[in-house]
Amino acid sequence: MIGNLNHVAIAVPDLEAAAAQYRDTLGAKVNPPQAEPDHGVTVVFIELPNTKIELLHPLGNDSPIQGFLDKNPSGGIHHICYEVEDILAARDTLIASGARVLGTGEPKIGAHGKPVLFLHPKDFTGTLVELEQV
Amino acid sequence: MIGNLNHVAIAVPDLEAAAAQYRDTLGAKVNPPQAEPDHGVTVVFIELPNTKIELLHPLGNDSPIQGFLDKNPSGGIHHICYEVEDILAARDTLIASGARVLGTGEPKIGAHGKPVLFLHPKDFTGTLVELEQV
Repeated sequence: MIGNLNHVAIAVPDLEAAAAQYRDTLGAKVNPPQAEPDHGVTVVFIELPNTKIELLHPLGNDSPIQGFLDKNPSGGIHHICYEVEDILAARDTLIASGARVLGTGEPKIGAHGKPVLFLHPKDFTGTLVELEQV
Repeated sequence: MIGNLNHVAIAVPDLEAAAAQYRDTLGAKVNPPQAEPDHGVTVVFIELPNTKIELLHPLGNDSPIQGFLDKNPSGGIHHICYEVEDILAARDTLIASGARVLGTGEPKIGAHGKPVLFLHPKDFTGTLVELEQV
């Protein structure tokens, strides 16, 4: 059911410093920051040959990652995203297995313009998992 | 300098339950557990089309991930691993940038039989980063 690891999302307290570290020290291909006001984040995409790293920084007063940064002031890995072909089929299989889907259970349009869902971390090895339909 | 994301390592309190979830619910290709006594872990490799997930569980009395599980009883993402072509050159560049390398600073042979180093999470967006020479 799951396909590629689409990205690893890392919440960071200083977006420019983190982007500079990946660009200048690690020599990665780092894209310019993108404001995603609908998701309460500014995102920097880092392109690795086989997947992406997404640096996330809070945008606005109601960012979903502010609480994470309050608990993890140095930043940290916020979630991982797996690709699926059919997000509704994936959701139904997961719910049938006892896993909880966050929010209403209906997919939303994610930062890449594609339907996404998040699974409850307690049901997935303590890991916040995003599913993205590709 | 960095190449592929080699793997995402997730520490889990119940290796069989986590492996079953990836295999049966998510439909991923899950390999049998491998004991790595030199690293104090039992590892289950999950093969995604573009990278790997490594489920880690403590092995023996002095496992480096026991403390992580004590703090995160449901499990969680423990580290991410980037591939590099020349680990000594990568290390020297990182140290010159002010990043700290864990341990002696000399590469060890990792769970894949290749030289690895770990970087201090405080110097990398709160994320434990492993570098593996490929």
